[in-house]
Amino acid sequence: MEQLIVVKIGGGIIDDTATLASFLHSFATIHEKKILVHGGGKIATSIGEKLGVESKYHNGRRITDVETLDLVTMVYGGLVNKKIVASLQTLQCNAIGLTGADGNLLSADQRPVGEVDFGFVGDIKKDGVNAQWLQQLLNSRLTPVLAPLTHNGNGTLLNTNADTIAQKIAEAMAAVMPVKLIYCFDKKGLLSDVNNDSSVITNISEATYNELKTNGTISGGMIPKVENALAAIKTNVSKVVIGHADDLHDLIAGKTGTQIQ
Amino acid sequence: MEQLIVVKIGGGIIDDTATLASFLHSFATIHEKKILVHGGGKIATSIGEKLGVESKYHNGRRITDVETLDLVTMVYGGLVNKKIVASLQTLQCNAIGLTGADGNLLSADQRPVGEVDFGFVGDIKKDGVNAQWLQQLLNSRLTPVLAPLTHNGNGTLLNTNADTIAQKIAEAMAAVMPVKLIYCFDKKGLLSDVNNDSSVITNISEATYNELKTNGTISGGMIPKVENALAAIKTNVSKVVIGHADDLHDLIAGKTGTQIQ
Repeated sequence: MEQLIVVKIGGGIIDDTATLASFLHSFATIHEKKILVHGGGKIATSIGEKLGVESKYHNGRRITDVETLDLVTMVYGGLVNKKIVASLQTLQCNAIGLTGADGNLLSADQRPVGEVDFGFVGDIKKDGVNAQWLQQLLNSRLTPVLAPLTHNGNGTLLNTNADTIAQKIAEAMAAVMPVKLIYCFDKKGLLSDVNNDSSVITNISEATYNELKTNGTISGGMIPKVENALAAIKTNVSKVVIGHADDLHDLIAGKTGTQIQ
Repeated sequence: MEQLIVVKIGGGIIDDTATLASFLHSFATIHEKKILVHGGGKIATSIGEKLGVESKYHNGRRITDVETLDLVTMVYGGLVNKKIVASLQTLQCNAIGLTGADGNLLSADQRPVGEVDFGFVGDIKKDGVNAQWLQQLLNSRLTPVLAPLTHNGNGTLLNTNADTIAQKIAEAMAAVMPVKLIYCFDKKGLLSDVNNDSSVITNISEATYNELKTNGTISGGMIPKVENALAAIKTNVSKVVIGHADDLHDLIAGKTGTQIQ
């Protein structure tokens, strides 16, 4: 049975034109069915500054007021998404750019106000991934390229963490075909020493993660990334790897990066 | 055989939240298969001003430098498109927002530099509409919502007049099913006196158009609109009507607006 590769790329890859171009070349040559999920990058922050929209974060997650929602809809759903799609089209990869509102792909609930009000941020509902439609697209040899936006089914788009979207999609699709989930960023994997690129932690489990979080080795924006990866491997996703975007094919083959166990 | 209704809405409808909401309610209740093509509206200009991108026009058509291309990709392909899609999803209309790059929907050539350099503006290629894929989407009960952007197949998005996109799509789809093309704006139809809303020209042909253009009754942004409408009726599109967005169902029924002959 043909397998599906779900790849997530983050800001560091998107912000650098040459790095992104090189990544997209690798991605386009994946022979298996594939889905790309992208984050936003610093461009949203710099455009937001020009528009007078201030960026606010809590533990590496953006707080989304109504102006920020419009900003990320423009930048993630428009600029970043459509440039990636246009580039993939030149590489014989028939990409289609989507948000969670398109074809009702990703239904979410706005996060309830707790200690922090994250604003227009969505948590994907149970059974909120339209896996049947994704499968139809994949069967038509299309490659979905997903912006980190969901919708509440009531007319409101919601900003949603791209790592989480990748995890939920991998999980939902794993019910119908074998799925590998690859988190690409600008490091060789999780590092035991953030200043030493060769200190890659080759394997991580929930137990070792808790240790590394407690001693501060894993912190900031890496926390949600690793938690999403751990959540995915608990479901029937067959492989979850975190590593460098330059190593995409080796990550898929399990030859490098941090394997989640 | 089921027919297809292609509806184009322009800036005046998009700029006003209440008008747009009311239009989308009408649109969602069209029982036939349907495609919505939208223009941009003043929001691109106002966001552009904040970003320091100046808007330039020649005969009602925007001149698109690289900054303007990014601007319209964000605003048309992201903000406007995805808000419309999210709204339609609440109205039991399974919308999918697309640019011409998505699924290689609309292939275009960058317009050659002539008397005017329009910059990153695309003219849709002969056979540049992926009608087969549009038909697949329609058969899956999806409603395509198209932003006024095409691509050159070489990685570059191109700004493309929404009236023209609507015409080319209607023409291509008319080869496979009966098509009506409805141009909606904020007037009851073409007016013989621009200050008198009841002076609707009920029918227009190429001969009467040339007369009205020569005597200045039809001018500015109406010129490309009428020329696109005339081009469409010359092909096998069964009906082309120009009228007010509030009258959508009556326009489809041929009860009001300006009929193109």
